[in-house]
Amino acid sequence: MTYTAPLADMRFALREVAGLDKIAALPGYEHATEDTIDAVLEEAGKLAGNGLAPLNREGDKIGAKLENGVVRTAPGFTGIYREFVDGGWNSLPFDPAFGGQGMPWLLAVAVQEMWQAANMGFGLVLLLNQGAIDAIHHHGSDAQKKTYLHKMISGEWTGTMNLTEPQAGSDLGQLKSRAVKDGDHYLVSGQKIFITYGEHDLAENIVHLVLARTPDAPAGVRGISLFIVPKFLPDADGKPGKRNDLRCVSLEHKLGIHASPTCVMSFGDDGGAVGYLVGEEGRGLSYMFTMMNNARLSVGVQGLAIAERAYQQAAAFARSRVQSKDDNRPDPAPVSIVHHADVRRMLMSMRAQIEAMRALGYYTAAGIDGALKTEDKAAGRKIQDRVDLLIPIVKAWFTDLGNEIASTGVQIHGGMGFIEETGAAQHLRDARILPIYEGTNGIQARDLVGRKITKDGGETMLALVAEMRALADEMRQAPGDDLAAIRTGVMASADALEDATKWVAQAAKTGLSDALAGSVPFLRLAGTALGGWLLARSALVAQGKLAIRDGDPAFLEAKLVTARFYTEVILPPALAQLGPLKAAGRTVFALREDQF
Amino acid sequence: MTYTAPLADMRFALREVAGLDKIAALPGYEHATEDTIDAVLEEAGKLAGNGLAPLNREGDKIGAKLENGVVRTAPGFTGIYREFVDGGWNSLPFDPAFGGQGMPWLLAVAVQEMWQAANMGFGLVLLLNQGAIDAIHHHGSDAQKKTYLHKMISGEWTGTMNLTEPQAGSDLGQLKSRAVKDGDHYLVSGQKIFITYGEHDLAENIVHLVLARTPDAPAGVRGISLFIVPKFLPDADGKPGKRNDLRCVSLEHKLGIHASPTCVMSFGDDGGAVGYLVGEEGRGLSYMFTMMNNARLSVGVQGLAIAERAYQQAAAFARSRVQSKDDNRPDPAPVSIVHHADVRRMLMSMRAQIEAMRALGYYTAAGIDGALKTEDKAAGRKIQDRVDLLIPIVKAWFTDLGNEIASTGVQIHGGMGFIEETGAAQHLRDARILPIYEGTNGIQARDLVGRKITKDGGETMLALVAEMRALADEMRQAPGDDLAAIRTGVMASADALEDATKWVAQAAKTGLSDALAGSVPFLRLAGTALGGWLLARSALVAQGKLAIRDGDPAFLEAKLVTARFYTEVILPPALAQLGPLKAAGRTVFALREDQF
Repeated sequence: MTYTAPLADMRFALREVAGLDKIAALPGYEHATEDTIDAVLEEAGKLAGNGLAPLNREGDKIGAKLENGVVRTAPGFTGIYREFVDGGWNSLPFDPAFGGQGMPWLLAVAVQEMWQAANMGFGLVLLLNQGAIDAIHHHGSDAQKKTYLHKMISGEWTGTMNLTEPQAGSDLGQLKSRAVKDGDHYLVSGQKIFITYGEHDLAENIVHLVLARTPDAPAGVRGISLFIVPKFLPDADGKPGKRNDLRCVSLEHKLGIHASPTCVMSFGDDGGAVGYLVGEEGRGLSYMFTMMNNARLSVGVQGLAIAERAYQQAAAFARSRVQSKDDNRPDPAPVSIVHHADVRRMLMSMRAQIEAMRALGYYTAAGIDGALKTEDKAAGRKIQDRVDLLIPIVKAWFTDLGNEIASTGVQIHGGMGFIEETGAAQHLRDARILPIYEGTNGIQARDLVGRKITKDGGETMLALVAEMRALADEMRQAPGDDLAAIRTGVMASADALEDATKWVAQAAKTGLSDALAGSVPFLRLAGTALGGWLLARSALVAQGKLAIRDGDPAFLEAKLVTARFYTEVILPPALAQLGPLKAAGRTVFALREDQF
Repeated sequence: MTYTAPLADMRFALREVAGLDKIAALPGYEHATEDTIDAVLEEAGKLAGNGLAPLNREGDKIGAKLENGVVRTAPGFTGIYREFVDGGWNSLPFDPAFGGQGMPWLLAVAVQEMWQAANMGFGLVLLLNQGAIDAIHHHGSDAQKKTYLHKMISGEWTGTMNLTEPQAGSDLGQLKSRAVKDGDHYLVSGQKIFITYGEHDLAENIVHLVLARTPDAPAGVRGISLFIVPKFLPDADGKPGKRNDLRCVSLEHKLGIHASPTCVMSFGDDGGAVGYLVGEEGRGLSYMFTMMNNARLSVGVQGLAIAERAYQQAAAFARSRVQSKDDNRPDPAPVSIVHHADVRRMLMSMRAQIEAMRALGYYTAAGIDGALKTEDKAAGRKIQDRVDLLIPIVKAWFTDLGNEIASTGVQIHGGMGFIEETGAAQHLRDARILPIYEGTNGIQARDLVGRKITKDGGETMLALVAEMRALADEMRQAPGDDLAAIRTGVMASADALEDATKWVAQAAKTGLSDALAGSVPFLRLAGTALGGWLLARSALVAQGKLAIRDGDPAFLEAKLVTARFYTEVILPPALAQLGPLKAAGRTVFALREDQF
């Protein structure tokens, strides 16, 4: 039930796959030296493993409680949150102009993986705050930035996202909360649901970002504006002043992430909560899209993180649980179950997909940095396009895998996996929210097919396919049958992804519905193919290092074995989504509503 | 959150796939007339929908409680259990010589699907009792049968299976419980874990079947004997008499099936629990294998059942939840989400796999009847071989799908799916035990590959492949492109299953480990292929009935659409397990224990 940050794997993915050296060399990241980065990873690993991980089980068991309007977080949470603020952990990737450390997102994402693996229920307060900071940073006025950003970046205050209403989930156009102008501010009223950390005892103030409609606004998404609605109105000194007219009226009873208070928030019961317009009226939803890339990447990383946590626990169990003889040896004495073929298959499938996710997640994070800091605007735009394309894949593929891998973790535990004390089941329960929030995975697939592929006819994806083929060329001379097998997989992936992309781009033109019917299988194919490509790159690097005896041979050999397993076992069923993604539209619309 | 027994689908699978008419015509089933069978299905549907289903959510929320050694079941359970006993529901498939109704297992399995879909936490008491009845019926003495079977078949008493100990899970050879001869009985002592309904308030007596070792027994599985250890020793009149020396010392806190008390049982704390040997010493484990087919089929049916329950709930939600416009129409008004492509894809994938499971499950149940009642012994033996082959597939494939489909059910609910009040999450939590108990799915795959395929070199499976090809021939003349597409799928399935079976049979000869590394992918391929074969048969029947206007056209057309969706969307990734099942052994053993 412990967690140890997989520093060697992380460093490998940061350096050899995501190109940390190049990122750290970008203008503005001069302070991200190798020593600094190593120190950050090391210290974060300690805090995650020794501080956060031990609070995870109690956080689940006891959870957050609402009593008389006050939310009390789980035991130990206020203390560890204080350590976060004091250690400056909250400020890692943010703008130095407002107290941030201005470190690369690539590093921040690796550190995020640790927080989320150690304690997802806790980690959510950090993610929501990140989103709120992004929104204010991009769209707030100078005065708003001055008032809120320092406090939020330090973590003294936290931010929330108030989007969903009972009738407005994926379809935010249906939202009804109202904001009426009243002098220099607005009076906001309405009910919001599923508000993560909408109320808690970790920080002295909570800055709610609320989507609401102004009285004469048009129907639909163009009538939605974004407001800052603080729990306590900042006074003249910037300190929390008057209590605002908003409250948490109940907490949801959820399948998982019990430590994270999911609030029903009521605004304006006593006449209206004071809210400050962000940017212009009617542009609320477009402002939300600004922060979506970071937020969706972070949720994808949660999928990776919970998978890593589940893997560590399952591997530890498999090494210690003794049951049945070894099939490979005559000795009848029972051995630890890590010796059994199917347990090994399960562990290999977990680690192979975790490494593929980590590679693709860090690669995408590096793209965010590249797009931000590359001085050549056109080159930066191209990188941004690639990030935009990858984001829905990272969000949906990682979170689906997070669930599958957490479930495999339960399975490896046998009967003990079903017992809550073991802790394996918690990971599965916690993971189950990931394919739902921050845009369901169906919405991600829709974004991928209906927006990202459509907007350039698949060009950005086909550029990735070309890079896959270039890697396959590079591997042509590589020695050994592992790399030969892996190279075959890369070529098959490139072919399938090219075919699928061209089909989707064409189908979306003639009739979006057909393309959408195949969007989830397409996303699965794309994620698995891209993950495999980056694992192949890892394998090639590992082989090169082995040849010159640079690094731990056991670690490097495991990279080769893992990439080969991925190629031969994980890849084929995913590439076989090519037929289904094209065919689904034929039958998906054939039944009438009442036939379901 | 309601459940309606899908009678039309059940009847179709019973008649058109499993050949209910032929089964009912077997000697000994003369009383299973069409009218009787219809009445049983109808009445069972009412009891499941109106009686059991409404207790499911409270059963989860409140669960079973242990207080001072007494287990109190969830609200309403004692009342509904009384209805079961009074209605004779418990006795359906059992021997009329002991008060059973002697109905076909095929019918009993369809009825079982209803109980398990309506309320799995309740349904477990029935399954465990069924297993205990089977064991005593096959291996008990005449006196034991006389004392126990009437009461257990009526349901006045219930049975349990006491196998697992902390160090002996999949590896029962490690068990330590002891039984020492003491006159006409034995004194049993030891601790057993994971004992389903080991203690409860539904019946006046509980008949524990306990595996234990006699003092001089050899180590391993050959030293294990089976004992009847009743909670109350039957007195001279066969009534519950003296309290035996056994108790439930605690209940597990589980992920799901909260209504089912999972007990830690302690035997012999005060000197030894009185136990009666079943059959001969040392044969306990082989006796357990006798009842395993029925028990594993029943657990498979639980997978089917929970999937059906999840589907009904998700479909109802999708028809009522309004969100976003219809992509196929210009009207901007939001529509129910059942109109959206990806929601439909999810619903189709649920129903297609449910229908495939039901077809294969009922087909297997019909085989149990056929093997029991066919007068030609050689023919009966062949049917039994087929049942033996299918059982691990039914158990593992159905229960994996049960989890995947329950998870899809959560996903269709969006954010509401993560909230416990919705009930969708309960199905996922309940389903999660199914791939674990009654032999983990890894153990099933091992049984399939290491025993069932190995014992005849794959001959029984290849006979099924031949039947698949025969169906494809039969379909050659069938009209319409649906059947043409489905036929292509049957042929691809036959090819893949033949190839896989031959590879596995050969690999198991040269080195079992390699075959075992691919055993789970093999089982997945086999289950999906066989399910698709029976769906194709359904589609052919539906087409024939449509042609002669026999039956509801909407129902019959949906069978065609569903089978085609299965063929084009579900089948390809499963058949693509052919490569992985052969390749897994290459990498699965490459890492050292400490590299995980």
